[in-house]
Amino acid sequence: MPQQQRAQLTRHSILVAAAGVIDEVGYEAARLSAILRRCETTKGAFYFHFSGKEEVAHALVERYRENLTELSERWYQRAQDPMATLVGLTCDTARRLEEDVLLRAGLVLACNHVGTDTDGWESLFDDLVGRAAERGQLRPGADPAAAARLCYAMVVGTNLLVAGDPHRLAARLEESWRVLLPGLLADSSRLAAAAR
Amino acid sequence: MPQQQRAQLTRHSILVAAAGVIDEVGYEAARLSAILRRCETTKGAFYFHFSGKEEVAHALVERYRENLTELSERWYQRAQDPMATLVGLTCDTARRLEEDVLLRAGLVLACNHVGTDTDGWESLFDDLVGRAAERGQLRPGADPAAAARLCYAMVVGTNLLVAGDPHRLAARLEESWRVLLPGLLADSSRLAAAAR
Repeated sequence: MPQQQRAQLTRHSILVAAAGVIDEVGYEAARLSAILRRCETTKGAFYFHFSGKEEVAHALVERYRENLTELSERWYQRAQDPMATLVGLTCDTARRLEEDVLLRAGLVLACNHVGTDTDGWESLFDDLVGRAAERGQLRPGADPAAAARLCYAMVVGTNLLVAGDPHRLAARLEESWRVLLPGLLADSSRLAAAAR
Repeated sequence: MPQQQRAQLTRHSILVAAAGVIDEVGYEAARLSAILRRCETTKGAFYFHFSGKEEVAHALVERYRENLTELSERWYQRAQDPMATLVGLTCDTARRLEEDVLLRAGLVLACNHVGTDTDGWESLFDDLVGRAAERGQLRPGADPAAAARLCYAMVVGTNLLVAGDPHRLAARLEESWRVLLPGLLADSSRLAAAAR
């Protein structure tokens, strides 16, 4: 195997091991020794790639943000209606979080280190629910900004409540959207497919 | 001042100082030295009352649980309808959390140390939404257990999202209930007063 490829593999295995440890015990309690043990890598190899735990954390957050940006762009480009985009994007993200420990650790780190409000989700909810309101899709009398905050709180709360068992995230999120949407929208029948 | 009374005051000032530090920086980062500085208490006086930071944390959680139990009993005894009880109890709790740093720290500790599911809230939501369903108060087709989980996720998410600014908690919670309830209930007009 060429040296560069092997280095890439080592770097990736460090990220996976760090994400696994952070996913299980949190960032503060994640010890370098536990990460090294998990990926069977020496300290020397670790410091060839990263200056320390902080730099690993930054790499995980960066990967999480890239993934989220890529996913949102894809859902926006489908040019569905705004609420279908919101439901589809959040459920799609939930399914990826279930499968991908690097993404789960990135989310935890993004929330703890940079603040929940700055990770792009809040403005995304505001934008999509606002567009739905402009099209007259919200229940008459529902304030768009308040509805966006409610949807965001529901997703954040669901994420927190299944934290101990991330493989239930997508199912719980779909369930919550199914209960929430019929009361929030003027006509929710169009969304039946998106929330599945 | 009698000695016993002075000892009680010292104990209370340690709890308030610890709660303040935990509220600002979290439990892990809360240092004993910062707590002692804040309440202007010596190490000797501290160890007269508590064996260490852990015992302070336990005292705060215990106080939080007692308060929550007392509040729920009061709201249950009013014998209002179940959803009005749920809305009133959560908003009342939010207002107390805004005012009382000991309670805020107790909630944070209860969630982090004992797990979000075991602090009594989840079963309370399940019970009250279930009773509302039995009375035919939920929107036709809404699954009571799923509706309870949605309401709980909304409250937990709202709490998390205003964590940096706890004085917005009650207002944000009332706003979320106002958006959520009309779509969740068969007839939400009765609840207008409770969600205020």
